Amino acid sequence: MSVDISAVAQQFTEYYYNVFDSNRAQLNSLYREQSMLTFETIQLQGTANIVEKLQSLPFQKVQHRVTTLDAQPASPNGDILVLITGDLLVDEEQNPQRFSQAFHLIPDNGSYYVLNDIFRLNYSI
Amino acid sequence: MSVDISAVAQQFTEYYYNVFDSNRAQLNSLYREQSMLTFETIQLQGTANIVEKLQSLPFQKVQHRVTTLDAQPASPNGDILVLITGDLLVDEEQNPQRFSQAFHLIPDNGSYYVLNDIFRLNYSI
Repeated sequence: MSVDISAVAQQFTEYYYNVFDSNRAQLNSLYREQSMLTFETIQLQGTANIVEKLQSLPFQKVQHRVTTLDAQPASPNGDILVLITGDLLVDEEQNPQRFSQAFHLIPDNGSYYVLNDIFRLNYSI
Repeated sequence: MSVDISAVAQQFTEYYYNVFDSNRAQLNSLYREQSMLTFETIQLQGTANIVEKLQSLPFQKVQHRVTTLDAQPASPNGDILVLITGDLLVDEEQNPQRFSQAFHLIPDNGSYYVLNDIFRLNYSI
């Protein structure tokens, strides 16, 4: 069995941000009870808590633009680690915010779920 | 047994960048044969290949400044996922470059080694 890690990571990322940017309530299918999200230092565990947090974010329109995407096998079990950097456009804001996001994906019945999700905006200092 | 994930990640990160910025040949103790590095799209496996790549980087002086550091448990075995964003200063350059780096750390005899290492500069587009 050979899995193209890079292709899986690209497909997952495209799907994830498409769902996030169109109807982020539907992201619940991508998390499990053991999943964790760290969103700008706030840590949450479990599908319901994670999706509630994502839904509570204070913007109506959002668009993720991926700049870089790298993936590696993260265990002999088929786990995949993905690091994404990109731009985030919210509402009518013209200037994108840079972001970095790491996903730890676990294979599950022919698909993947998110075990770890760490999201950070890259503020200038 | 309780491990403070955040404290471990902070200690590891501080140690890693201190060694990187002072004598990066010594990073070999932090990798294993199964370790992978993705450095600006180039993928390498194994301690010797990884350290050779890091040593070949074309700067004499380097300084990592961590802006954000987040960590999560990445498995029931004590693995830790770390996402770092920060600034990189090389040689006499005055303007730092932004970077993002993900580490997947595996516990090993009271310490941790790097199974996955993904490094990306955050270019403006």
